[in-house]
Amino acid sequence: MANVVLINPFEVPEGQEDEALQVWKRAADFLRQQPGFISTKLHKAITPNARFHLINIAEWETAEHFQAASSSAEFQKITAGSMEAYPHYPGLYQLQAL
Amino acid sequence: MANVVLINPFEVPEGQEDEALQVWKRAADFLRQQPGFISTKLHKAITPNARFHLINIAEWETAEHFQAASSSAEFQKITAGSMEAYPHYPGLYQLQAL
Repeated sequence: MANVVLINPFEVPEGQEDEALQVWKRAADFLRQQPGFISTKLHKAITPNARFHLINIAEWETAEHFQAASSSAEFQKITAGSMEAYPHYPGLYQLQAL
Repeated sequence: MANVVLINPFEVPEGQEDEALQVWKRAADFLRQQPGFISTKLHKAITPNARFHLINIAEWETAEHFQAASSSAEFQKITAGSMEAYPHYPGLYQLQAL
């Protein structure tokens, strides 16, 4: 079965870009050590009016691997308060056959 | 200079997935013939509660190439009404140096 793709768009209030980036880095450092992690790439908007300032695109072996990692106590601790500070919308995706 | 990445999350009302996909395919068929187009990949949510049912990730040589293609009369015609039917949030991104 193909890998799954986690796509996570972040709304970042103006002036809080650096802090959001630090939280993301701490979360990424944890996630990349977990079973099933393949890769992660953070994308930064270059258009000033983009609704989502940051979008993370990561690959995991399976949905279950990502769900286990992201529901762990360690991950919850690192990201505590981040949903309120930087509303984000993580979802798991597969490439659509065209 | 590195390529730019277009990321476009779509909110698709339940039951309208097939129609949204058809609109996307017509738009993609046009865009892939335009100068500066590199690639496009449509991602479909596998988590039932994902806010964005479809997310497109495309690469273009420059922001100007994408902006020229997407502001063309032909593209506007293909996608007429789609912002209301499937709210979406296109933005141009670059990979964040970590």
